[in-house]
Amino acid sequence: MSYFSDLPKVVYEGPTSDNPFAFKFYNPDEMVGGKTMKEHLRFGVAYWHTFTEDLSDPFGAGTAIRPWNHLSGLDLAKARVEGAFEFFEKLGVPFFCFHDVDIAPEGETLRESNENLDVIVGMIKDYMKHSDTKLLWNTVNNFSHPRFVHGAASSNSADVFAYAAAKVKKGLEVGKELGAENYVFWGGREGYETLLNTDMKLELDNLGRFFHMAVDYAKEIGFDAQFLIEPKPKEPTSHQYDFDVASGYAFLQHYGLQDRFKFNIEANHATLAGHTFEHELHYARIHGMLGSVDANQGHPLLGWDTDEFPSDLYATTLAMYEILQNGGLGRGGLNFDAKVRRGSFQKDDLLIAHILGMDSFAAGLKVAQKLIDDRALERVVEDRYASFSEGIGKDIVEGRADFRALEEHALGLKEIGNRSGRLEQIKSTINQYLLRTFAGE
Amino acid sequence: MSYFSDLPKVVYEGPTSDNPFAFKFYNPDEMVGGKTMKEHLRFGVAYWHTFTEDLSDPFGAGTAIRPWNHLSGLDLAKARVEGAFEFFEKLGVPFFCFHDVDIAPEGETLRESNENLDVIVGMIKDYMKHSDTKLLWNTVNNFSHPRFVHGAASSNSADVFAYAAAKVKKGLEVGKELGAENYVFWGGREGYETLLNTDMKLELDNLGRFFHMAVDYAKEIGFDAQFLIEPKPKEPTSHQYDFDVASGYAFLQHYGLQDRFKFNIEANHATLAGHTFEHELHYARIHGMLGSVDANQGHPLLGWDTDEFPSDLYATTLAMYEILQNGGLGRGGLNFDAKVRRGSFQKDDLLIAHILGMDSFAAGLKVAQKLIDDRALERVVEDRYASFSEGIGKDIVEGRADFRALEEHALGLKEIGNRSGRLEQIKSTINQYLLRTFAGE
Amino acid sequence: MSYFSDLPKVVYEGPTSDNPFAFKFYNPDEMVGGKTMKEHLRFGVAYWHTFTEDLSDPFGAGTAIRPWNHLSGLDLAKARVEGAFEFFEKLGVPFFCFHDVDIAPEGETLRESNENLDVIVGMIKDYMKHSDTKLLWNTVNNFSHPRFVHGAASSNSADVFAYAAAKVKKGLEVGKELGAENYVFWGGREGYETLLNTDMKLELDNLGRFFHMAVDYAKEIGFDAQFLIEPKPKEPTSHQYDFDVASGYAFLQHYGLQDRFKFNIEANHATLAGHTFEHELHYARIHGMLGSVDANQGHPLLGWDTDEFPSDLYATTLAMYEILQNGGLGRGGLNFDAKVRRGSFQKDDLLIAHILGMDSFAAGLKVAQKLIDDRALERVVEDRYASFSEGIGKDIVEGRADFRALEEHALGLKEIGNRSGRLEQIKSTINQYLLRTFAGE
Amino acid sequence: MSYFSDLPKVVYEGPTSDNPFAFKFYNPDEMVGGKTMKEHLRFGVAYWHTFTEDLSDPFGAGTAIRPWNHLSGLDLAKARVEGAFEFFEKLGVPFFCFHDVDIAPEGETLRESNENLDVIVGMIKDYMKHSDTKLLWNTVNNFSHPRFVHGAASSNSADVFAYAAAKVKKGLEVGKELGAENYVFWGGREGYETLLNTDMKLELDNLGRFFHMAVDYAKEIGFDAQFLIEPKPKEPTSHQYDFDVASGYAFLQHYGLQDRFKFNIEANHATLAGHTFEHELHYARIHGMLGSVDANQGHPLLGWDTDEFPSDLYATTLAMYEILQNGGLGRGGLNFDAKVRRGSFQKDDLLIAHILGMDSFAAGLKVAQKLIDDRALERVVEDRYASFSEGIGKDIVEGRADFRALEEHALGLKEIGNRSGRLEQIKSTINQYLLRTFAGE
Repeated sequence: MSYFSDLPKVVYEGPTSDNPFAFKFYNPDEMVGGKTMKEHLRFGVAYWHTFTEDLSDPFGAGTAIRPWNHLSGLDLAKARVEGAFEFFEKLGVPFFCFHDVDIAPEGETLRESNENLDVIVGMIKDYMKHSDTKLLWNTVNNFSHPRFVHGAASSNSADVFAYAAAKVKKGLEVGKELGAENYVFWGGREGYETLLNTDMKLELDNLGRFFHMAVDYAKEIGFDAQFLIEPKPKEPTSHQYDFDVASGYAFLQHYGLQDRFKFNIEANHATLAGHTFEHELHYARIHGMLGSVDANQGHPLLGWDTDEFPSDLYATTLAMYEILQNGGLGRGGLNFDAKVRRGSFQKDDLLIAHILGMDSFAAGLKVAQKLIDDRALERVVEDRYASFSEGIGKDIVEGRADFRALEEHALGLKEIGNRSGRLEQIKSTINQYLLRTFAGE
Repeated sequence: MSYFSDLPKVVYEGPTSDNPFAFKFYNPDEMVGGKTMKEHLRFGVAYWHTFTEDLSDPFGAGTAIRPWNHLSGLDLAKARVEGAFEFFEKLGVPFFCFHDVDIAPEGETLRESNENLDVIVGMIKDYMKHSDTKLLWNTVNNFSHPRFVHGAASSNSADVFAYAAAKVKKGLEVGKELGAENYVFWGGREGYETLLNTDMKLELDNLGRFFHMAVDYAKEIGFDAQFLIEPKPKEPTSHQYDFDVASGYAFLQHYGLQDRFKFNIEANHATLAGHTFEHELHYARIHGMLGSVDANQGHPLLGWDTDEFPSDLYATTLAMYEILQNGGLGRGGLNFDAKVRRGSFQKDDLLIAHILGMDSFAAGLKVAQKLIDDRALERVVEDRYASFSEGIGKDIVEGRADFRALEEHALGLKEIGNRSGRLEQIKSTINQYLLRTFAGE
Repeated sequence: MSYFSDLPKVVYEGPTSDNPFAFKFYNPDEMVGGKTMKEHLRFGVAYWHTFTEDLSDPFGAGTAIRPWNHLSGLDLAKARVEGAFEFFEKLGVPFFCFHDVDIAPEGETLRESNENLDVIVGMIKDYMKHSDTKLLWNTVNNFSHPRFVHGAASSNSADVFAYAAAKVKKGLEVGKELGAENYVFWGGREGYETLLNTDMKLELDNLGRFFHMAVDYAKEIGFDAQFLIEPKPKEPTSHQYDFDVASGYAFLQHYGLQDRFKFNIEANHATLAGHTFEHELHYARIHGMLGSVDANQGHPLLGWDTDEFPSDLYATTLAMYEILQNGGLGRGGLNFDAKVRRGSFQKDDLLIAHILGMDSFAAGLKVAQKLIDDRALERVVEDRYASFSEGIGKDIVEGRADFRALEEHALGLKEIGNRSGRLEQIKSTINQYLLRTFAGE
Repeated sequence: MSYFSDLPKVVYEGPTSDNPFAFKFYNPDEMVGGKTMKEHLRFGVAYWHTFTEDLSDPFGAGTAIRPWNHLSGLDLAKARVEGAFEFFEKLGVPFFCFHDVDIAPEGETLRESNENLDVIVGMIKDYMKHSDTKLLWNTVNNFSHPRFVHGAASSNSADVFAYAAAKVKKGLEVGKELGAENYVFWGGREGYETLLNTDMKLELDNLGRFFHMAVDYAKEIGFDAQFLIEPKPKEPTSHQYDFDVASGYAFLQHYGLQDRFKFNIEANHATLAGHTFEHELHYARIHGMLGSVDANQGHPLLGWDTDEFPSDLYATTLAMYEILQNGGLGRGGLNFDAKVRRGSFQKDDLLIAHILGMDSFAAGLKVAQKLIDDRALERVVEDRYASFSEGIGKDIVEGRADFRALEEHALGLKEIGNRSGRLEQIKSTINQYLLRTFAGE
């Protein structure tokens, strides 16, 4: 059976191609800064958005036309696996990611759900033997089922906590089985709808306990994947505990978990929290906590998670700039946690959308590398902070100054000569780099 | 006396120039789509941001280092005029814009203010004789002085209404004297802080009366400038009556003013109102109400009017697309209602920032023209709406269909075959155009 | 069969009652300002939220436990009708509202859908004979089905336009059959996801044509209900054409429809558009366009339509203040376009939530009436605008002033004596009224 | 000299008073839950908003009519001190707060500024001897002067860092001299305008160093005030490092400062960060970090810091609920970091606005105490989380469960019986408490 045979294998045709099924900027084997694009850009397909999603929204039914729409249950799950690996191959993508319920139907009982999972995980494992596409990360969906209505690890019900734990236990086993590089925790219901009926302290303590148990169990079974927390400020809850990277980092430190976890940073979650994408990446990076990326984008004028495929070249450039400065993402990658718009319901839109995302990051990579090669921004920064390399500045940085010494210094100052921050000039530079990078092609 | 003699005349050096005082994309005499860039891009310098602004913010004092900082009163006003025309010449900009209080100090009395104005207007008129820079529009500031604390034309005080009228009367005379192409009304205080103490109906009626009087007086003195309303949703008021273009259009129709006014659309005001810049331009355009543009941009994560110089090439491309589709802006132009950041306080930042803005619109113009030349978006639209060119669609458009006929048609339909809206593919196209347009240079 | 027999009939027990199934503030026969509460508060139950809704959200499955969860198709539809009238009677609510698809399942074809509708409409008509609950308004759902993915009356497909027309035709017939007081148009898909593939002018023109056809057909069949447009800025679209009341009013004037339509104003839609609820009510009121109200509330920190039951007494007070100043809502009412939270999934939550909403509006009504009785705000307004009752102010209002006369007046002014707007004092007054109104009970 | 002699001393007259200069709900000696209102409500007047502020906004000049408007320099500063203590006495307020530059003019040099401070601090110390009003906290303004344009402790200039340190050194000395209960750090410029020119790691490290130096110096001089960080997400910066309580807590832990600092939480800053006021209070409370409160409110539809006097009784009730649950604020208090609206420019508005704030918190206190007395919310919470008091829940909480045990438990579960969260019922309860609390008066 073939689900995507009518779609072409995507190859690089360069920026002037008018073939919607060709890469214009992503050229996997092209060298950029000493590595191939494919090495830099560890792209992942999100199983849920690409194979499970029906494109419904709160005001409308699903529109997605998919070749397995007539199937159900395990048959549907199996068809999706077949289609998925076909799709990975067409796209030439190195990774994929999934939640348990994306790949296998939930059963009547936990045991039955686990059995369903085993069937599909076995099938995926077989397909992976003959595929170049690996598992970037897996996770379990502890937010969609009604049992998680009041939370999972932060539920008010101990039974639900136990159920959530059992699912993560299975998730860790699945991750090990399939060689996942990372394991992700997104706490979609780990937050509150209203403080008025919530014991936040107990819920946070339980969340801390839950993560420690996960760490212990992974160790026990020898699953060494990087653990990742994925922050999001709200939606579906009114307030999610992992609001942003900083609040997640406060949590990890408070519960002594900061050495075992890093962050999976999503662009759209960043902006919903009032931060730029690059802010979240940067903050995580300088704290040694940048793990992986959910590569998508939001709509700046819409207040919900639109999970659009990334297309904004400013955002991809600045994201790749952070990633390059981080020396890459290590075991992490760029997972397209993105869905085609409800109006882009055709099967081929899935391919087109991934091409958009991959091209956008490829272009961003090249611009970012050029910025770094030329030290275009680094020179600005070095120059601005030069005063901390000598004299009183050096004393401050090296811990030799106190308030008395600083006051003495300040009393001796005539006039403090700040210089322009040159924001407009820097923006002009960014635009030049953006428009010039592809000039030679 | 010379204020900007240490700054170079700005000339086009192309996208690879690393001279911060050179245009990289704006080449005034370059032909784009049958007109020169200079004809397309009727740029204006905003007197207030460039010559009057001190770069204070609500939490900090002014930082601007300006060559006239030691002067005051009419001496200061005169120095600014000299500096302004020097600056216009360095930049090679065709237009400028001002409020009365930007150019001349307010006196103790209205009479004294008018006398101050007369002095400076005379001086400007002299300078204009020897300058290529013309007056795009003028207006009066009926919002900063404490007398306007509760509104101007919508004040609860009849004296304030009268005072505001007297100022606009003078503004119209000044506009005529200096050959202004347009006259702008921004109702910074025409709104309310709280509904609880406000008679909105009386205020709107008075606003309507005020505009009619302005129309009458302009006619009386033979001042034929295009009248423009500049919408803004809020700030400084909690709610401004001209919230956006649509609400302004509702107002103009209600008071029978729609034939005499168009809109001056500001990018940052658009986004504060929850619209994209291009939405406001498009809405105005298809209603025949697109007059002029305040070319700036806001910060998508900040909730106030940041008035940044435009740098986002997506925004400038889509803005120029609308303007080109409008056949240009007629007597309107692209006024940089933008200020350098508080951290960009040096004199030369003013030049650099304008270069950023002009380059960004020049690049946007070229990309937009290419999109139009190739009919890249127009073909998409034509194709999508083809069903209204024939059969029942044509009947609808030409007024031959009613609900009975349409029901009959619908009952006969088998299945309705929507096609993908292809948003991802279109975004990919935009990126290609953006990155390819300058490939040849 | 009985669906709500285990729930009590709700009666007024006063503010100290701790019975969750009793009204604490809504006392239907209590006189307030010369009318009974029941006459003032024409409450309606929203069929979709109360009987059809499953409480799913974008990240989770439905949680609602309903007594008909085991049924489907027409059986389900019939069960809901039975339950609905039981519920109306328990609650003692005078009105209900519905979309076509809330009450009857869609068939394979339009014809079949209409037949299903006929079955259920007949059943509802029978129930209404023995019920005190009337139809406040009906409408058709032209947004959920995939066929409306690109719009209904503003679709790019003429077939979809025709289909939408056929559905509204049927909706008008149903409204007439059931004696609806109003007919509502909410354009959930009448907007765009992206301007880049949209012909906004054609879409708006078609929308205008569509409304004219609806007016004509209603006239033809003798259906005299008030037509209502329900504005919403966005969601599910990126931009809805009826963004807010002002933009809707601009549209109605432009297409010559302002005499046949009024607005159905929803609190949550108002705040999503950047307005207060009372602003939208007030704006509509002073333009003679206040038709009906969707009584709910949003969450001030969430960027999507939460459709919460109204509980904020400031909002209900100010809403009732506007409604009382309007002389009531005429044929309109207060429809609870509100759903219980996903966590409030029990059947009795439906009753509790409506009690919350009715109590909140009842309390608001009493506070508002007391404000009016005491002229607490009206005196403030009268006093503030006194200058327009005499002298130059009267000249302005009565059309006897022009710019010359006003300048002359302004030149003669010494100093303009504004007085404090007293916002803090007014807020203090509101709080006193809020806390004191129930002091006697 | 007397500045406020024409204003009455404010006394409690009860909720039916129509005297704008009387308290309606704040009765200082009334017992609430075992303490007097005055003991509960440690109100503070913000010197800057009440005595220094001129009510300018970004689009308009100051409007404040103050009795010292004709003075300048040290004369002005002295007049304000006299007026301030008169005002404190009229209002009967126990505390005040200030920044250095609020009370004394900056000199040409740091030395001169310190001398000016010494003069005024001496004067204040004298006044305090005869006054019941104490210093809740002081701080230094390290954000308004142009030297801080790029930050203070996080500046790119070592000289500025030193200058900032010298100012804080003086601030600590002043705090000790005047017996301040707390010392506050608000990092108005400790953040960035753009990441592109920023070395965030160096800036954060320097901020950490700066705080350690402050701790050391306070210890050295024996100043034992509680240190407080005041988070704010943005404005004037694009991104402030102390974005919210959680990010501040992450910072404090990372730099080992969590034992010496608590938080000063401002309502308006909370909402600008996307949190409710009560969320920030609650989060700080359960982490043992709730220090003090800036009692104001924002406008839910405006995106900037409006610093309004608190009037929303829901907010004051929930804030007082957290504070009562915290056992009070310890050495902290409720500082009115609030300004009268620009339209409330009269001198007596200052008194009226403080009355509004004090009344709103007094009413909130009473409602909150009643909720606690009746355990109205606590019972809900206890009941919801009962499953963690026994069986597997107790095992989880007491650290006896691991993933294996939990899976075993989960496999044995039949069906998980969640119960409704009852949000609507709880909101109804809150409204009843709000409207009933004053029923007896």
